[in-house]
Amino acid sequence: EEACKEVEILSKPTQKWSGRVHFDYWHFPKESALPNYLDTGNAAESPPDFIGFRRLRYGVAGDVNETMNYKIEMEFASPDSLAFKDAYLGWTELPWLHTVLLGNQKRPYGLDHLNSSRYNVFMERPFVIEAFNQDARRIGLQSYGLSDNEAWNWRFGTFAMQDLSKPGHQYSDNYQSEVAGRLANTIWYDETSGGRGYAHWAVAGSAAFPSGGGADRFRTRPEARTDGKWFDTGVLGAANYQLLGLEGVLNVGSFSVVGEYQTVHANRTAAPNTNFGGGYVYAAYWLTGEYTPWDRTSGTLGRTKPLENFWIVNRCDGCRSYGWGAWQIAARYSYCDFTDQDVFGGVGESATLGVNWWWNPHARMQFNYINGRISDRVVAGAPSTAGWYDALGLRFMVDF
Amino acid sequence: EEACKEVEILSKPTQKWSGRVHFDYWHFPKESALPNYLDTGNAAESPPDFIGFRRLRYGVAGDVNETMNYKIEMEFASPDSLAFKDAYLGWTELPWLHTVLLGNQKRPYGLDHLNSSRYNVFMERPFVIEAFNQDARRIGLQSYGLSDNEAWNWRFGTFAMQDLSKPGHQYSDNYQSEVAGRLANTIWYDETSGGRGYAHWAVAGSAAFPSGGGADRFRTRPEARTDGKWFDTGVLGAANYQLLGLEGVLNVGSFSVVGEYQTVHANRTAAPNTNFGGGYVYAAYWLTGEYTPWDRTSGTLGRTKPLENFWIVNRCDGCRSYGWGAWQIAARYSYCDFTDQDVFGGVGESATLGVNWWWNPHARMQFNYINGRISDRVVAGAPSTAGWYDALGLRFMVDF
Amino acid sequence: EEACKEVEILSKPTQKWSGRVHFDYWHFPKESALPNYLDTGNAAESPPDFIGFRRLRYGVAGDVNETMNYKIEMEFASPDSLAFKDAYLGWTELPWLHTVLLGNQKRPYGLDHLNSSRYNVFMERPFVIEAFNQDARRIGLQSYGLSDNEAWNWRFGTFAMQDLSKPGHQYSDNYQSEVAGRLANTIWYDETSGGRGYAHWAVAGSAAFPSGGGADRFRTRPEARTDGKWFDTGVLGAANYQLLGLEGVLNVGSFSVVGEYQTVHANRTAAPNTNFGGGYVYAAYWLTGEYTPWDRTSGTLGRTKPLENFWIVNRCDGCRSYGWGAWQIAARYSYCDFTDQDVFGGVGESATLGVNWWWNPHARMQFNYINGRISDRVVAGAPSTAGWYDALGLRFMVDF
Repeated sequence: EEACKEVEILSKPTQKWSGRVHFDYWHFPKESALPNYLDTGNAAESPPDFIGFRRLRYGVAGDVNETMNYKIEMEFASPDSLAFKDAYLGWTELPWLHTVLLGNQKRPYGLDHLNSSRYNVFMERPFVIEAFNQDARRIGLQSYGLSDNEAWNWRFGTFAMQDLSKPGHQYSDNYQSEVAGRLANTIWYDETSGGRGYAHWAVAGSAAFPSGGGADRFRTRPEARTDGKWFDTGVLGAANYQLLGLEGVLNVGSFSVVGEYQTVHANRTAAPNTNFGGGYVYAAYWLTGEYTPWDRTSGTLGRTKPLENFWIVNRCDGCRSYGWGAWQIAARYSYCDFTDQDVFGGVGESATLGVNWWWNPHARMQFNYINGRISDRVVAGAPSTAGWYDALGLRFMVDF
Repeated sequence: EEACKEVEILSKPTQKWSGRVHFDYWHFPKESALPNYLDTGNAAESPPDFIGFRRLRYGVAGDVNETMNYKIEMEFASPDSLAFKDAYLGWTELPWLHTVLLGNQKRPYGLDHLNSSRYNVFMERPFVIEAFNQDARRIGLQSYGLSDNEAWNWRFGTFAMQDLSKPGHQYSDNYQSEVAGRLANTIWYDETSGGRGYAHWAVAGSAAFPSGGGADRFRTRPEARTDGKWFDTGVLGAANYQLLGLEGVLNVGSFSVVGEYQTVHANRTAAPNTNFGGGYVYAAYWLTGEYTPWDRTSGTLGRTKPLENFWIVNRCDGCRSYGWGAWQIAARYSYCDFTDQDVFGGVGESATLGVNWWWNPHARMQFNYINGRISDRVVAGAPSTAGWYDALGLRFMVDF
Repeated sequence: EEACKEVEILSKPTQKWSGRVHFDYWHFPKESALPNYLDTGNAAESPPDFIGFRRLRYGVAGDVNETMNYKIEMEFASPDSLAFKDAYLGWTELPWLHTVLLGNQKRPYGLDHLNSSRYNVFMERPFVIEAFNQDARRIGLQSYGLSDNEAWNWRFGTFAMQDLSKPGHQYSDNYQSEVAGRLANTIWYDETSGGRGYAHWAVAGSAAFPSGGGADRFRTRPEARTDGKWFDTGVLGAANYQLLGLEGVLNVGSFSVVGEYQTVHANRTAAPNTNFGGGYVYAAYWLTGEYTPWDRTSGTLGRTKPLENFWIVNRCDGCRSYGWGAWQIAARYSYCDFTDQDVFGGVGESATLGVNWWWNPHARMQFNYINGRISDRVVAGAPSTAGWYDALGLRFMVDF
């Protein structure tokens, strides 16, 4: 037995490298004066097109030994604004707490945010998802759990609210801390079809204490990659705020419907309290017969495997066949309200049509058409408090 | 057959990691007043020596599946000015278009620029190569083709003219686009000697539309790693410009002669049109009997394999021998003219003597001595419009 | 024989990837007015807590062929202040010079600095170690040698004194060069116990020539991760300075005692010469029976292997046992004097209690409590020239 232990102790950490390339094109064919002003500062000037990398990452994850792990992934899409994404060390196989990660990681705020950008149905996340959780990851300590029958999974932890993915640390006695959690239930999972049918619901919440540090600001782009963030509450000056989120998924074969609602109540120090919120609902359908897998361990979407790849399929007889990949269509309605009391962050409404063309399990093309409206948005010098816009988005992505 | 397809669909992306370390030393022993002024702003102060990394890269490339690929390579030589180099996703085995890459990649502008810095004969590229194609790579969509007999290869595509390797994207409705291409012909390739003899010619061209965006500026260093760029046309204010390039290679065993010519015609909006151009010719010879391989798939230089490595060679009998590596000598004459009409970017002439000492296929030392002249260069406050300079360069490089 | 050589010549470079994650928390429970002022500019405001990554690295090293190697490691802990750490190419198996590395590497300045942060006993290095060798690595050319019986090892080389780990190069005719070396002797090494007993001494020195370039400034934090550097001589204006260091280690089983002394004599151009210096001594003991290995090839601490990992240990019979990892306690006394003549950089004294909890050979937790004093420190506007402080530090680290 001594000899065996010796072997275990000397085992080396593992390394698994991965990365992704997401290349985007966005065009804004037509819009009214307010969106122009919000984006360019000029009511007569359209939001400029976007061309370039949306994500360009590589990094490494692995196990240190049987009960510890780590991950470092860098975002190289804008080399002049380098940031880390997942960057942590962790413990696994813990009693009660299961897995605990220390470092930069996603906050437990709800489905669309927790879904990987590799699998999400639309190119950009909905208003409230982005606004209440800008850039998604924070430095914190979080537990990840799963029930034995895989029906329940949860994550909860404490976080510094400032986005530290560029400085890497903070020097401050005001931690701007929060405690947040998500409890998720895969209430139906059709084992016999390998997961072609499932239903899920979850509740998420956060108690956040910005305490004058400035992290209580909610802003976001119009679900498209504009230069400016059109919705913006400004810094609220809240002593604390509470977030509550509800979400649900129903998937039957190639068809799925997903919805989420989030609300934030902010207790401001020198002004009346405010309530912001919103949500979205979308339906999606695979024209080519695939289905969107469900990851019961994390309560998030999984990687779709096309029934046949595009465009060459090697056959075992040495010949080649040709395939069309997997085609998915989807429609989303999204709503947000960041205007309350003396805060005029904007009320948004957006309809998105999406087409996803998966060439193979690690590559796809996304096409989005968006028609949106913004109202109750007050900005000094703006020509109006309401407006509308169209947007067209195209993404090419691979991951490895 | 069903089962077989299943296997293919699940195949994982591949990863191949690589990188390079290039360490440079440059010294400027003697020069006249104008080069001093151009580099330091002081006619009496010599260009300072350069010590440090010229290139320090690592990254990953691979196949996503049978018909798609990707690459990300970061340039870490100046961490405070991080940039990506090759960064793309692509499709292979396409009809007509063969390979198509989307993302940051070299423009199809001619031989010396397309040669890898790992294989190029001289430390720095000639005047016109650098000036007409600053920092080489642009975000674009490019096709790469090859004829069945490997005699012809070509690449053509469309690019955003701004160098986006640091921001990673552009927000602009003026794309500053161009279409460019190169058609190359390996007119002679001696198969029987394994490629010790070959001849090549190619034509390259670009139609570029800066349209007031500022990408129509040509500038370059004096073929040495000076702090300043001594040749500079300034922004031309051209609606469009056209580039034409011609190149030829003749290799007979250890001897090769290479030449290239490029010219740019710019149609300026509010000023007379201008013509800039130049070229180079070099001869190189392997004292130790090696030859420079030719890559017929891309029309560029390949990796030289020394007949014996420096300095230890392991023998199969368990003993060690000692080798001297591979030695190559080379001489280059280069000329450029960036002065026309009211633009006084400078006329340059430069003679370079080079020695390349390959220690093994992945490591070499380069030594360059340069004597150059600059004339017709008008800069406010400069002591003269003409001058001369000497430069000594030393490079140590490995790649992996 | 020809065929065999051919095989060797074609051998590919090797790649070995590695990295580390160090996550720190620092708290400053109580201190007098001077430390407050030095850190925050306000005598009434405590040094703020630190939360975040201390180190976050990954990179690659390998052999180019039988006689050359390379390494590139990036520090991603502060992505907005990216730097490289080890970054070099090198030659091995050389006569007389053994291994020679060209590029960014640690200067040969003494034990605590040469020890990897993965193995060092305390969270931060002592005053003089940090102050005389800020950020440790410089671009230079250094030889690394080892005697056949492994009793003696040495390293010596020449370096540019400016820290170039962010720009990657320098443009300057004032190289600010130095020559430095370290000669180390493992005077006792108990082979029969596998190295549980050993004694070591070494002498290190540097002749440095800042020559007005500004690299003759010594400053450091108080052995804790404060925002400010509390000890600071300012730029001395020295034509040259000389560093001398002495060090010793005695290890008997689980117990070790280590000490080091360094002194710098600076010849200032327009002011009287100055002498600065200091040292430290620490004792450490493994409560759980382990020992700290010694690396005779480099004269530095090695990686400790816990007798049993924390907290799960897989047994060969398929069952699991539970372990407590390895526990080490340590105490350090450190002293520095950066005040001489008209320079009032500060006199420091610091006592540190440390606990190291190794979970497995690649992961540990460190806890440090520090009580320190600073005197003879003159800063404009400061409330006093002397003060004291407490600090608590916690680190989680893994490497892979």
